Amino acid sequence: MANLKELEKIVGVDNVYLDKAHLIAYSYDATRSSFKPDAVVFPRDEKDVSEVLKFCNRNRVPIVPRGAGSGFTGGALPSEGGIVLAFEKHMNRILEIDMENMVAIVQPGVINMDLQKEVESKGLFYPPDPASENYSTIGGNVSENAGGMRATKYGITKDFVMALRAVLPNGEVIRAGKRTIKDVAGYNVVGTLVGSEGTLAVITEVTLKLLSKPKLSKTAMGIFPDVESAMRSVFKTMASGVTPVAMEFLDALTIRAVEEKYKIGLPKNAGGILVTDVDGDLEINLEKDLELIEAKFRENGAFDFKIAKDEAEAKDIWFARRNASQAISIYGSKKINEDVTVPRSKLPETLKKFGEVGEKYGIQIPCFGHSGDGNIHTNVMVDGKDPKAVEIGYKAIEEIFQITVDMGGTLSGEHGIGLAKAPYMKMAFTDAEMELFRSMKKAFDPNNILNPNKMGL
Amino acid sequence: MANLKELEKIVGVDNVYLDKAHLIAYSYDATRSSFKPDAVVFPRDEKDVSEVLKFCNRNRVPIVPRGAGSGFTGGALPSEGGIVLAFEKHMNRILEIDMENMVAIVQPGVINMDLQKEVESKGLFYPPDPASENYSTIGGNVSENAGGMRATKYGITKDFVMALRAVLPNGEVIRAGKRTIKDVAGYNVVGTLVGSEGTLAVITEVTLKLLSKPKLSKTAMGIFPDVESAMRSVFKTMASGVTPVAMEFLDALTIRAVEEKYKIGLPKNAGGILVTDVDGDLEINLEKDLELIEAKFRENGAFDFKIAKDEAEAKDIWFARRNASQAISIYGSKKINEDVTVPRSKLPETLKKFGEVGEKYGIQIPCFGHSGDGNIHTNVMVDGKDPKAVEIGYKAIEEIFQITVDMGGTLSGEHGIGLAKAPYMKMAFTDAEMELFRSMKKAFDPNNILNPNKMGL
Repeated sequence: MANLKELEKIVGVDNVYLDKAHLIAYSYDATRSSFKPDAVVFPRDEKDVSEVLKFCNRNRVPIVPRGAGSGFTGGALPSEGGIVLAFEKHMNRILEIDMENMVAIVQPGVINMDLQKEVESKGLFYPPDPASENYSTIGGNVSENAGGMRATKYGITKDFVMALRAVLPNGEVIRAGKRTIKDVAGYNVVGTLVGSEGTLAVITEVTLKLLSKPKLSKTAMGIFPDVESAMRSVFKTMASGVTPVAMEFLDALTIRAVEEKYKIGLPKNAGGILVTDVDGDLEINLEKDLELIEAKFRENGAFDFKIAKDEAEAKDIWFARRNASQAISIYGSKKINEDVTVPRSKLPETLKKFGEVGEKYGIQIPCFGHSGDGNIHTNVMVDGKDPKAVEIGYKAIEEIFQITVDMGGTLSGEHGIGLAKAPYMKMAFTDAEMELFRSMKKAFDPNNILNPNKMGL
Repeated sequence: MANLKELEKIVGVDNVYLDKAHLIAYSYDATRSSFKPDAVVFPRDEKDVSEVLKFCNRNRVPIVPRGAGSGFTGGALPSEGGIVLAFEKHMNRILEIDMENMVAIVQPGVINMDLQKEVESKGLFYPPDPASENYSTIGGNVSENAGGMRATKYGITKDFVMALRAVLPNGEVIRAGKRTIKDVAGYNVVGTLVGSEGTLAVITEVTLKLLSKPKLSKTAMGIFPDVESAMRSVFKTMASGVTPVAMEFLDALTIRAVEEKYKIGLPKNAGGILVTDVDGDLEINLEKDLELIEAKFRENGAFDFKIAKDEAEAKDIWFARRNASQAISIYGSKKINEDVTVPRSKLPETLKKFGEVGEKYGIQIPCFGHSGDGNIHTNVMVDGKDPKAVEIGYKAIEEIFQITVDMGGTLSGEHGIGLAKAPYMKMAFTDAEMELFRSMKKAFDPNNILNPNKMGL
């Protein structure tokens, strides 16, 4: 391995960690896996990124870009050792909010919520809101193509990235896209880089489309006797012409867990709950939307529908959904947490089959999530101290992936592949498709230094 | 060259043209340039496409996919000879309109307007509407990432492509994307292929996102004393929180030409006109939108604002914009027609500078187009029979491109690069960026058989 002390000459001695304690601190993410890097480097600017990449390319040192390390699939873990390139210290500024063109230009280390707050203070709106919004960074969001609660109406990160600056593994700086809605000159490098999990280039600047902040929003909740009627309501409602901001779902196991843990008075006979938000600038639009949603929910089996009267009630309604992830820990100390996504019309059948997998293995698989876009957080809960139970859990996950693929769905709606889902890529992609991914990787990174060994490549 | 008669064994004798008359018929597109292919092949299905590509790859025969041949930049012209692969004869069917997931699945040869009509008959909506909508195909639209009048509110083709099937130059079939809003497994091959001008893979099936058809729409027109006040109104209006469907523009030269040719009573003192559409499901929304638009227009200098009372009046208002392209022929027999795009806030300065270019060279450069997304059709009009005038025209175009790039804009908002704009790529991209494009091309098409010599690669 090259002499990593040389990195201090590039970024300054304060911006390189080589000591064990710090290296361990940067060896984790939200997966609970751990891989110790050989160095952690904090670039001060794009030029630093370029010089560090040149160093790595010359010396064949693996390098892994890292935002907040809040990913669920190990995308920011240095599984091959080498350098962790961390953006939290310097490259974390909002560079410009361009009101005239409704665009924000930010460095990769900006925290999603900081951007949201800043643009909302100016009457603008950045919709992508992954559950990690309070700590995850825009660089990470772009690299994973993050989704969130509001994707049903507004789309996901890729729908908001207009332009990027990035550094290729050879150290060359490139720009892609423009501060314009339309740009068809050259290949769509922006589209290629979004969701590429930090394996193709290191993003150094992001230009994001902003919207006007809707003046009003309302929250409602439908209660269903079973999962199937809830799931049927999702696609029937969405196909009726209304576009809610969010259409979130909790299954019976999740409802029971929330109630057991927080005692908030959810109905005991509920087999499924849908939480929905609508927004707009006029009261009448929200009323019409909620009327239609209630009609569709009731038509498809809802036995109760409640509209929040004020923000406090809205918060109460959202409480169950927001705390679902914590609550389900009652079912097991280890959660194998996936984010499969199927076409909305396949939700009823998919959820039914997931239930059958749980029954077959005698385990609990509480499901909740972004049903409005077919994106279900499936949580296989097992006793983490029992290796047999964990093994069974992973068997169940494999079946869940197979069901998803058979339904025309995808292994991941939001979290990416990283290390955690790499073994399952073969279930979803043919040899020709995997070969194409490898060719694309090679086109950007011929020496395979940038976040190597991810995505099953 | 390989024996092209072999192609008859693959697709059947009826689906190969080798005779001169037919070859000439497929040597043109909307650029007026001409390159004769050696064969025209009409694949019956994806398997045919795969076998033809295998033949081409084995024999190193260039192959160029072709939709309607309505492109403005020569993207479908066989500039290196070889095979034109035409989708109009067989692979032109709408395969499915999935009402439950609001998705259409179509073959590449489907005409844009046929799809629009079909989905609208079911209450759904496919927004991308390039000016060629009556004849251009979805395959061509995806390959060029086509825009249109409604892009201001709804976005462009890339925003609607959820999934693709395609054949790689080696004949391997790949699928990319899903019938879901979210899919982050593997690289974003859909994003990479959209706008790749048929140089990376041959698209054989397209899955498109559909919306609900808005129930109401209204048209209005603002009249301005000069181009600058019109252009200022565009970005001031867009930044005020209203999102019109369309925000189209005509400059003074265009207005004069339309009036001279059609005598429809446009005000003689108009220096700029903006035509705008708004849509929605409730009358009140349209009214509020138009109120705000009128206020912003007048604030920024409009001396007249007219709302169409009915569809006939709306059609009248749109007449000037829709016939602008024909009308400006009064300024010269040859039109050098570009579709540069700049950030909206740069429109006033950009148009002013384009005017200065016209003055400098003593030529007319009427401008009109999609000002709501900064996309201006600039038309350098010269006497096509005078080689000196044509030369001057191209000098003016070069300056127009330089101004656009200096303003942070792009060489093309809609039409692509193809052959026509290839010489200007170096003005917009660095060596490193061009090198990256070439690497991407090589990753998909190592033998450079698929639409070679396009995009300046």
